[in-house]
Parts: sequence; C-alpha cells; structure tokens
Amino acid sequence: MKFLHTADWHIGKELGGFSLLSEQQTAYEQIRDIALSEEVDGVVIAGDLYDRGIAPTAAVNSLEGMLKDLNINHHLLIYAVSGNHDGATRLGAGREWRQQNELYLNTTLADAFTPIETADTQIFLLPFIEPAMARVYYQIPESQARQYQTINQVMPQIIADMVAKFDPQKNHLLVTHYYVTGSKNQDYELTSETNSQAGGLRSLDDMMFKDFDYVALGHLHLKQASPSETVRYSGSPIKFNTKEAQTQKGVYVVEINEHVVTTVWHPLMPKKDLILLSESFDTLIDPDFYGQYERSHKNYFSIKIQGLANATNARATLAKIYGDVVEVQYDLPTLVADKQGIPEITADEDGADDKLIAAFYKYVTGTDLDDNQQRLVDDTLSDLYQQEEE
Amino acid sequence: MKFLHTADWHIGKELGGFSLLSEQQTAYEQIRDIALSEEVDGVVIAGDLYDRGIAPTAAVNSLEGMLKDLNINHHLLIYAVSGNHDGATRLGAGREWRQQNELYLNTTLADAFTPIETADTQIFLLPFIEPAMARVYYQIPESQARQYQTINQVMPQIIADMVAKFDPQKNHLLVTHYYVTGSKNQDYELTSETNSQAGGLRSLDDMMFKDFDYVALGHLHLKQASPSETVRYSGSPIKFNTKEAQTQKGVYVVEINEHVVTTVWHPLMPKKDLILLSESFDTLIDPDFYGQYERSHKNYFSIKIQGLANATNARATLAKIYGDVVEVQYDLPTLVADKQGIPEITADEDGADDKLIAAFYKYVTGTDLDDNQQRLVDDTLSDLYQQEEE
Repeated sequence: MKFLHTADWHIGKELGGFSLLSEQQTAYEQIRDIALSEEVDGVVIAGDLYDRGIAPTAAVNSLEGMLKDLNINHHLLIYAVSGNHDGATRLGAGREWRQQNELYLNTTLADAFTPIETADTQIFLLPFIEPAMARVYYQIPESQARQYQTINQVMPQIIADMVAKFDPQKNHLLVTHYYVTGSKNQDYELTSETNSQAGGLRSLDDMMFKDFDYVALGHLHLKQASPSETVRYSGSPIKFNTKEAQTQKGVYVVEINEHVVTTVWHPLMPKKDLILLSESFDTLIDPDFYGQYERSHKNYFSIKIQGLANATNARATLAKIYGDVVEVQYDLPTLVADKQGIPEITADEDGADDKLIAAFYKYVTGTDLDDNQQRLVDDTLSDLYQQEEE
Repeated sequence: MKFLHTADWHIGKELGGFSLLSEQQTAYEQIRDIALSEEVDGVVIAGDLYDRGIAPTAAVNSLEGMLKDLNINHHLLIYAVSGNHDGATRLGAGREWRQQNELYLNTTLADAFTPIETADTQIFLLPFIEPAMARVYYQIPESQARQYQTINQVMPQIIADMVAKFDPQKNHLLVTHYYVTGSKNQDYELTSETNSQAGGLRSLDDMMFKDFDYVALGHLHLKQASPSETVRYSGSPIKFNTKEAQTQKGVYVVEINEHVVTTVWHPLMPKKDLILLSESFDTLIDPDFYGQYERSHKNYFSIKIQGLANATNARATLAKIYGDVVEVQYDLPTLVADKQGIPEITADEDGADDKLIAAFYKYVTGTDLDDNQQRLVDDTLSDLYQQEEE
C-alpha cells in the first residue's frame, strides 16, 4: 500500500491575528497534487483537522471544500482521525455517509477496533481520546478507575484489542494522534502544541506500537519529533508559530510492501513564509537591511528587537515597513541577566518620582537616562504635578 | 409522488429547563413508522432540524442518529432545508456525501435552483435565508440594496428563478421555511417562533407560491397556521411551549398525482404530554384534584396559580406533587386590573416600612394583611432594625 501521510492541518488557526486560511488552502492544493502525481492509494490525515472544537464557519467551509475536492472531485480515499483540537462529535457528523465514498474519519474509540481492509493492508484509525472515554468504553468500575487514569495506563489495552484483529496475511497501519516519544525525540518536547501536558505520564513510548508496520502520527508539528523510522510525525503543512520558522514543512509518501516500509519526504512551498528577524531597531528600519526581504504581505515577520527602539510606536513603524508582522518582542540583555533577582526600587521622601523612573530605566536598559530623556521626564512630571494642584 | 411532511424538530430544545431529547426521539420513531407503513417516497423536513446554530453535542448525536436510522438503516429518501434556528454552514457539512445516499439537505440559496428530479415530481428545496444573502447571490449593487431589504422584496425573484426550471410534465413541490400568511392564518401570528419578526414585511403572501402544487412549510409550530389546502405547515412533532398545550401534534402524508393533492393528518402520541393547570393553590395541592393526573414524570405541567399561594415555596411544593413542572405563574386579578395605573406608594417619616409593605400587599392582592401576616412583618422588621444598630 502507498499513501500520503499528513496531519495537524488546524484549519481556522490564526497567526498573530492573521487568518491562515489562504495559506492553508495553498498547502492543501500542494498536498493534493503530490497525492495525485505519486498515485497513492489514499491520504492519511492524523488528527487536528480543525484548530478548535467549535470551528468558525469560514473554517468549516474551508475544510469541507478540501475534503470534497480530494474525495469527491479527485476520488482519493481518505483515512483520518480526530485530534485533541477537533470537536469529535461535530467533526464526526455525517460520518456514515462520507465513508460510503471511502472517506474514513474516526472520532470515537469504538471505531478504532474495526480496521479498514484493503487488498494488502489493515488500517486502524484511532482518534485522540481522553482516558475517561476509555474507562467508559471498557466499563471500568469506579474502584479500578485509578489504574486507568493516564493514557499510558489505557493504551496497552487499546493496542492489544487492535492487534487481536490482525490478519497475519496483511500489513498493519495505525493512524493516531498522541505525544509519542522514543530514544530520538526527547528533545522535541517543547514543539508540542500542548506543552503543559506533554512529557511524563502523557507521553507514550514508541515501543508500544512495535506490532504495527507504520504508525502515522499527528500532534507534534515537526517531523523531527518522530520517535523512529516507522513511528513518524509528518508535522503540520504550514508554520504555526515562530519556533517553527526555521523548519521545513511537508508530507511523507509511505509505501508498505510485505512489512517493508519506505518513506519519502515531499516539502511544501509556503505561499507566505514566516521570517524571523533579530536585530537592533536601527538596523530593522535601515533600507539596506529590509530591502533584502520580500515584503508587502508576501511574508510573515516575527521580529525581535535587540535593545530598545527609539520610536514612539515601534510596532506600527515595523508594520509599515514589513507588512504582516505577527509578533514584536524585545531582547533586553540586562533585563534577561537580572531575571533571577529583581531589585527593589522604592521612592524617596522628596522628588521621588524622577528617581524612581531613572532607576527603573537603568534596571531595564542597563544605561542611564540621557539629557534629552531626563528633560522629557522632568517636563512630563511637572505637567502632572500642576494638573494635580488645579 | 407520496411523501411525509414534517418540520421544526428543534432537536436540543429545552422546556422549562427539561431536556426534550427523549420526547423528540419518541416522536421521531413514530414519524419513521408512519413513513414506513404509508410507504412514502420520501420524508420532507422543512427546516429547524436543530434548535440552535451551534447545537450541543448531545443534540448532534441525537439528530445524526435519526438521520442515519431513516436514510441509511431504512433507506428512506430525505428532502430537507435549514431553518432560521439552524446554523446553515454547520448543518450543511458533509452535504455532498449525504446526497449520494439521497439525503438532500439544502442550506444555501444557490442550492434552491437545482430541483431534485423524481419520475413525476420536481422538488425544490429553498432554505431559510436572510435578504442580505439574496443580495450577495444576485450581486445587487449597493445603490439598489434598498429595493432588496425584506424577504418580501427578494422572494418574487427567487420564485421566478425556480419556476423557470419547471418541467411542465411534472408536479412541483416546494420545501421551505418562512412565515407565510393567507386569508386563513392571520390569527396565528402569536404562534410563531419569532413573534417580533412575524407579520408585516417579514410575512409572505401564500399567493406568491401559486405555481407550486404543494408547499411544505416549516417555521410556525401549529398546523392550524397553514394559509391554504396546498400551502401548509405540518407544525412541530412535539409541544414546545404552553401556548401549544391544547393542540394536537402530528405530520401530514401528502400525495401529488397529476397536480391533484391529497393530505392526510397523522397525529403523534406524546411520550410525556404538556398539561396546563389553572387553579387556586388550595385546589392544586388537594389530593382529590391532583389524583386525576398521571404524575411522577409521566407528564409536564405548566401551572397558573389563581390568587396567592399560602406556602413559603409554592414551586417546590408543586414540583413535589406534580413532578416535572416546567412553569409556575400567578394569576392575580387585582394586579391585572390595576395594570394601567400603578399607584405611587411612598414611605412616611416614621415607622414607614410596615406601612409600605402593607400598601404593597394590598396593591398586589387586593386584601389587607391578616393578623398573622402583620405579626410576621413586625417581627421581621424589628429583627432588621436591631441588626442595624448592633
């Protein structure tokens, strides 16, 4: 069997307040074209089709259009599961009708135990579920609930029940959506969409899945997070945050032939890329510097200003130059260096305010106020005192 | 063609805080059984399948189960439109897959102009739309927008565009969801779900639809609101409010044979009925009175207390006796009589509070406080004065 492996479309997601629907459509079209030119038997979407449980109507129209184009217009089979970002019930509406046209989209645990049978492969679609759903499915009595608290505690049973359905004559493909770790991807914990839950009891060991020929994972957005050669994350089709700015997005085309797996990476070309800049404000507004980047809404920019910006509204100034600025941050070495112990700055008895401001400025920037700045502070304070007296 | 006409399922609606899902399931099963025993060619659902644009997941599971049972398990064709209560985009998700199994569910204006062709009938499915959607569809320039402000102004064009698709060899059925009036149903304005919008510019004259053999309407919940013999409301399958308590719910089975229409009314038997009581409190709590009603959650009760209730918590007392009490109201003749001019009740200088209470009580009930009540007021006030001083 030959299939395309993608995941984490997050249709409807925004980046710094900018809708990504148009970027997502472009990525979708590249995915479809790869699927067609590679003549795959099906497209695997390993969860998080939507970004939110109740997707905005624009996102619904967008995803429906993609699924229709792929499955109805281009007759491609789809094997999908819901992820932790999807609203399983809402995404699952119409499931029985979709599957009559070989769009398989599983959203409940019960669905996972009936594999889809192709000529040479059994495809198991296991959606993301909370352990509580497994307790309901397996009718775990309250007295034993503590043994089924984490996904790690429930997964062995789920896997055993899938393996029990194995046809030994066929290959076995699992599509699912969890945080899975192996010896290789321990460092990628921070790339998870759900950092707070990642790691520890919430992560699954890739050895759990050793009976499957290939595990097509969703959840982590970088393919580098894949625990092994056969337990892989495809990553998301586009960059969703600045941590992903320097990475390459794409899909896998996977072939399983009598338990032998080959994977080929196909990169996707972003319509608008996400460019990370980290420079002094003077450099950032220098035409010689910004002239080297394609701007006017052709790229997204995430900007880190080194030191302070001599501008009343740095963000507006940068947006005017760069177009779609999704993020502006300051990198202040002194502030970072002092992070451990914030000094106590207290007001003196008399003329306290200007000293307070000067101390704070020094604390943040590491330098004293210059004469112009000092004058500005003095003038502003006099005005305020005068207003108070009136 | 022979079909069943139902509408306004409002799956997920509550009555006085009680979920109606179980009642709605029972009504659905009766509708299905009528469709099967009458051997209809299809089931028409004329809008408001859900009660809300974003239906709760329990409602999604419930409606999906009904559609699946009807269309997939029992192979019944479905002709449906979205109503003003439905979220058109969300309800329309998966539409193309559903219609491959002959579940037709239209949610956009554009869909209305492609009729579904059966051997002898063209079925036009026109969903509820706002006039603004018609302005977008017809690309009305801003300068002409004022001529397309109301549904009355846009409907003639919509109807003309449907009539232009008529095959003269066939019957013509329209399924839609609007407030339509004729000479007969002017009195039913108050039964509309959207009273504030009903009537005037928002209502359509039934003569607009004269080219259709039958118009299967949804929107008003009583079949008595039907403007004519061939432009009909089926009403909702269950009672949604106390105004509907004394009405009968059901569906129509309609046959169109060479433009001759016959309709047969099939009543639905509520699992739990809605019973309206309007008695004095003493009567309501009299075992001889309440003994005549099936209680203990076998009926819903909407109760109007004539006069005052001599009980500290009348609602709780009644709920204990009657079970599912969806509403408790007071019918106070004096208050109603005085509605025109509310007398000014002002406090005196001294000892004002007790006089204020006595005047208010007389205003509301028409009688003076009796000795017991007077003592209760005095005691309560002394306690309060004492607390203030402490």
